[in-house]
Amino acid sequence: MVKNMTTDIEIADAAQMQPIADIAAKLGLSSDDIEQYGHYKAKINLPVKKVAGKKHKLILVTGINPTSAGEGKSTVLVGLGDAMNQLGHQTTIAMREPSMGPVFGIKGGATGGGYSQVIPMEDSNLHFTGDMHALTSANNTLAALVDNYIMRDNELGLDPRRIIWRRVEDVNDRALRNVVTGLGGIMQGVPRETGFDITAASELMAILCLSKDLHDLKERIGRIVVGYTYGKEPVTVDQLGFTGAIALLLKDAIKPNLVQTLDHTPAIIHGGPFANIAHGCNSVIATRAAMATSDYTVTEAGFGADLGAEKFLDIKRPVLGKTPDAVVIVATVRALKLNGGVNAKELTEENIPALKNGLANLKRHVKNMQQYGLPVVVAINHFTTDTDEEIKTIADACSELGVQGIEADAWAKGGQGTQELAKAVVKLADEESEFKPLYNKEDSIEDKLNAVATKIYGAKRVVLSTKAKKQLKRFEELGWNDLPVCIAKTQYSFTDDQTKLGAPNDFDFHIRDLVPKLGAGFIVALSGTMMTMPGLAKHPAAENMDIDDNGQISGLF
Amino acid sequence: MVKNMTTDIEIADAAQMQPIADIAAKLGLSSDDIEQYGHYKAKINLPVKKVAGKKHKLILVTGINPTSAGEGKSTVLVGLGDAMNQLGHQTTIAMREPSMGPVFGIKGGATGGGYSQVIPMEDSNLHFTGDMHALTSANNTLAALVDNYIMRDNELGLDPRRIIWRRVEDVNDRALRNVVTGLGGIMQGVPRETGFDITAASELMAILCLSKDLHDLKERIGRIVVGYTYGKEPVTVDQLGFTGAIALLLKDAIKPNLVQTLDHTPAIIHGGPFANIAHGCNSVIATRAAMATSDYTVTEAGFGADLGAEKFLDIKRPVLGKTPDAVVIVATVRALKLNGGVNAKELTEENIPALKNGLANLKRHVKNMQQYGLPVVVAINHFTTDTDEEIKTIADACSELGVQGIEADAWAKGGQGTQELAKAVVKLADEESEFKPLYNKEDSIEDKLNAVATKIYGAKRVVLSTKAKKQLKRFEELGWNDLPVCIAKTQYSFTDDQTKLGAPNDFDFHIRDLVPKLGAGFIVALSGTMMTMPGLAKHPAAENMDIDDNGQISGLF
Repeated sequence: MVKNMTTDIEIADAAQMQPIADIAAKLGLSSDDIEQYGHYKAKINLPVKKVAGKKHKLILVTGINPTSAGEGKSTVLVGLGDAMNQLGHQTTIAMREPSMGPVFGIKGGATGGGYSQVIPMEDSNLHFTGDMHALTSANNTLAALVDNYIMRDNELGLDPRRIIWRRVEDVNDRALRNVVTGLGGIMQGVPRETGFDITAASELMAILCLSKDLHDLKERIGRIVVGYTYGKEPVTVDQLGFTGAIALLLKDAIKPNLVQTLDHTPAIIHGGPFANIAHGCNSVIATRAAMATSDYTVTEAGFGADLGAEKFLDIKRPVLGKTPDAVVIVATVRALKLNGGVNAKELTEENIPALKNGLANLKRHVKNMQQYGLPVVVAINHFTTDTDEEIKTIADACSELGVQGIEADAWAKGGQGTQELAKAVVKLADEESEFKPLYNKEDSIEDKLNAVATKIYGAKRVVLSTKAKKQLKRFEELGWNDLPVCIAKTQYSFTDDQTKLGAPNDFDFHIRDLVPKLGAGFIVALSGTMMTMPGLAKHPAAENMDIDDNGQISGLF
Repeated sequence: MVKNMTTDIEIADAAQMQPIADIAAKLGLSSDDIEQYGHYKAKINLPVKKVAGKKHKLILVTGINPTSAGEGKSTVLVGLGDAMNQLGHQTTIAMREPSMGPVFGIKGGATGGGYSQVIPMEDSNLHFTGDMHALTSANNTLAALVDNYIMRDNELGLDPRRIIWRRVEDVNDRALRNVVTGLGGIMQGVPRETGFDITAASELMAILCLSKDLHDLKERIGRIVVGYTYGKEPVTVDQLGFTGAIALLLKDAIKPNLVQTLDHTPAIIHGGPFANIAHGCNSVIATRAAMATSDYTVTEAGFGADLGAEKFLDIKRPVLGKTPDAVVIVATVRALKLNGGVNAKELTEENIPALKNGLANLKRHVKNMQQYGLPVVVAINHFTTDTDEEIKTIADACSELGVQGIEADAWAKGGQGTQELAKAVVKLADEESEFKPLYNKEDSIEDKLNAVATKIYGAKRVVLSTKAKKQLKRFEELGWNDLPVCIAKTQYSFTDDQTKLGAPNDFDFHIRDLVPKLGAGFIVALSGTMMTMPGLAKHPAAENMDIDDNGQISGLF
């Protein structure tokens, strides 16, 4: 690899990619099994056949509560995948697709960084193979059909005030959070209050990610509740007759996408729900495709283990039909110091007392995963400002918890910097473990909310708003009790207040609103002030982006 | 070809496609010159080299004022391209990309029909290679950046009431025509009235279609006027600093797309502005790519010659740098009877008097094209209900105008049904002709509007609303006089009233609003009640669409 590069895009641009057909061959897929999108991207045709003699092991990468810059979870994941292949353990990584909202907003891409990246980087972070756009388009076609329905005969008596199907965009656009549509007179529709979410938070995104196949996708679309009648009865997409059209719009999006890492590890990237405002896991179809063709599949769940991993285990796992064989929790010195009370601007200075204070956050995440009965290893993601003493402090704390804490330097060294972690992961994944669910299907929705809040977040109890209480009562009447819960919560804190770092205890956890997602198969619970449409920063990343006359890109990280 | 098929999708599904690399080879393009999207679609890398020894002739296909079902202009175009190749004249067709709004709404696709279709049909009519979505995404990212700008320091003093940049969607959604955004309080943006257009009517679509290359695209994006300051000065994208990010989002969309017809004629499909509410022509880059590599390029301009062809000649031609060598005007017995006063439900019955009455519409379109100095041929697109007497009546009328009227049966017979037309077109394209512009660049905007309205539509004069008069005055002060005009008008009538069929004379033509599109390089003039966002029918096409568990599609035409 060429060194002395400064930005992710420069490193990615300098990479030698292998033809995507060669990457597919590593999974036993022929050129008939894929549809190429250019030379280095492909969609994998369904179904993907299980390759006999593989180990089919699954590794879940998650993290602690991060700083606003993120803790390099994707970078560690990519480096880990490369390291495992370098050590002779045949491995595929399965990740989410980046959303363009954050790319043009503030956060940067979701395809790793430095020498642990998925490539082609710019394509993966922009329109990719069009899945996000297909979802946006399907979502908004349904919205238009619903609005058209209520301005026509409206035979089912769908109440304009009770339509819960919102429009979406893959853009961070706060001005669309709350809008009034249908203005302008009789021929312009029925005026009503509504809003837009980011595509990553849409029910169709969750459906895409939780469907087993096209048949399941259609059934889930048909079950979507778009709103209620004047008599307060739910109205589904099947009742309106739009299931086929919406499924048709997702016929290609349902196929998982194949790309590669800088070190040519196969990377299946598919589906991209955020973990704070959605369920935070890549698609079941993609994870299954990776597992079917590989000894080891390394996948991730967004943000901290309180969000992504909890949702992986309580929402995705039952559909996937597979429990992770090992869990990697990514921690950084920086994030632990932040959790320990250090100001965000002083994270580069050594501060052992603050670090020790912040370790409470890591400890809770480790114990949470152990609570599910899962084998855990901690990856200490290396930053150049870390001191040896700081790293040792974390490793010691891990030992006290009975888990290994291993430094990983995926950003600067790629798979070479992640081999110790890889060895520990492979060993851990071979151990026996028994999964213990957090709650049971039969529990009431309120009990499920309390289970997550008390056992995972450390809350004293869940406090429901008056509105949420009413909703719960109605959901029970409607027989929606069997569904798991998907809590929308800040990624910065175990609580519903993003300023409360570390590992708070004995707090009330507030739920203000519930949204039934019958197609996805869960009940969304909105906590605190969590928004399902992000905004842009004062100086959005877009300000620095450019493309020259020859197509050379700059400013994309 | 297998006969006894009933629907377009069945015929398309039964077709044997050639690998897209083989189609590219017909244009002298190697596999390095294209990026495959699956086996049968590709993007063509830029720039496309001019192949020496080719004739580089250009044929423009346009039509008369149609019925609501359309007159099969695309079908004739595809059949004509196939016929020319069958006769040994190396031909490429260059068309617009379909918009999903009408596909799920009412009209059906824009890729021909019957045995004259572009394939893969379902892909071309759905997400295709993502160009529409890239435009939607770029447009709405800019909108979000603008709304974010006004809620921050707003250093330029952009007036929220004077922002003219609207959001877009590739969906027919009337409820989004007029909306209020930014509701919900201080952190949710600045409340203001705005609306959504269909993507096909967006300025970015026009920019994509009129750009010569990436450099030109960026310059045009930079010139977009998003609104005005409190002091009523225009604010451009360059001033806001967002040019690079928006251009970056269009880096792939700017490349033309290659597919094929049922008879394997290369089809370059790129850009899709509607001709009623936009400029109605495929991209300059695509038309140039076809001309550079072919003896004959057959391209189209939307709806009747009053819309598409006028805009092709007055807006696209100056950028393209090429005048059509021949013009084909597509007419049908049905549409002429409709223009002659027959009720839409009785078009299948022979009615010679009504047909003769309706011929006034065809005559005006023919004379309009002759007015530009262009050689014209009329294609009488065959429908099974046409009688011999009706066909003869049209052909006779054409003779009186000094042009040929030739029956074409592209739908049922493909290129075999279009060979007489092809021979006439090739002969016509070899004739000398001299282009006469309708107006001059230096003319005032009002004079340009009057030139189109009186010379093409047959109006007595243009009547501007009070608002439009004020706008014109301001545009003159700002030095925007040099731009051509792009009139948004109903496709059903020469007037601004869609119920006035045939060839009305001496009417007032009303302009209610003007929109400066500095990036596209024209001034849009909205006439009558023309909407830039279509609505859905009472029973949208979406109701009949389906996809089964094996991916088999039905109801898509």
